Amino acid sequence: MNMEEKLVNSKTIYDGKVIKVIKDKVICPNGNESYREIIKHNGGAAVLCINELEEVLLIKQYRYAYNEILYEIPAGKLEKDEDPYNAALRELEEETAFKAKELIKLGSIYPTCGYSSEIIHLFLAKDCKITKTNFDDDEFIISEFIPLNKVKDMIKNGIIKDAKTICAISYYELNK
Amino acid sequence: MNMEEKLVNSKTIYDGKVIKVIKDKVICPNGNESYREIIKHNGGAAVLCINELEEVLLIKQYRYAYNEILYEIPAGKLEKDEDPYNAALRELEEETAFKAKELIKLGSIYPTCGYSSEIIHLFLAKDCKITKTNFDDDEFIISEFIPLNKVKDMIKNGIIKDAKTICAISYYELNK
Repeated sequence: MNMEEKLVNSKTIYDGKVIKVIKDKVICPNGNESYREIIKHNGGAAVLCINELEEVLLIKQYRYAYNEILYEIPAGKLEKDEDPYNAALRELEEETAFKAKELIKLGSIYPTCGYSSEIIHLFLAKDCKITKTNFDDDEFIISEFIPLNKVKDMIKNGIIKDAKTICAISYYELNK
Repeated sequence: MNMEEKLVNSKTIYDGKVIKVIKDKVICPNGNESYREIIKHNGGAAVLCINELEEVLLIKQYRYAYNEILYEIPAGKLEKDEDPYNAALRELEEETAFKAKELIKLGSIYPTCGYSSEIIHLFLAKDCKITKTNFDDDEFIISEFIPLNKVKDMIKNGIIKDAKTICAISYYELNK
């Protein structure tokens, strides 16, 4: 069964700092024409940092799109063509007080397959050392270690809602 | 610690079929001005359908944003102000041959907290009956039941990459 769609023409709607919006005219497998509104995004990298007590490093951060303060694992955007491993190391250090000696790849998730090209690369950091914080100018972040079992309860109870954080914990559990 | 950002002004960049793009000027907690590029999205609903053999109903669908065929649980967009429960029932029936008698809420995830307001509501369907398929005009979907243990391996091995699917399995496991 052929499921692919063929591009007819592409129009850039907006070319911003974080996202690029395009509207593509496509031919569907049945020959019909349709339009696809797509966000182009460089992708992201996120780090699950778990200490020797099996506590998870979570950050609390205000997220404008939801007008809420969310619990998340440290994460950030990739620069164009940036290696996700390097971005994960940098974001962990920028957003928390911790520097990882090494990261292990957990997986790559597709968060919004309907309308965005974003891929988030997930890593596990185990051997973390404290360093100084170095926040971005417009980031205001609180970080804390929370026991893994409590984190799982927080997912179950809807306190943690961030998809990359839930997926990272899921990969960690599946690899146990 | 005050982490909220205050809106100064909002500009609509694009008002499309699926997404609306806005660029907001905000005041950060430290008094600095910044811009937020945000996608406004009605949200989605997705259904984890597991049969009596503990097999998971997965669909294979071409996703234009990634130019890939992805494994996912059945899901779809909400109409404006639509009840996620009703949307979940509808999408399950439209995308697969199955109709659920009842759905149980698993959780609501925030897939892209950096730049989109989308929330995906996840439900569990247990008592499903086959009905006729009723695909959208431009959707081409294959559905199949896959044993839960194999689905977990597919997540671990990177064959399943869709975040809502990984999160739904995670909620199911946490509620066991």
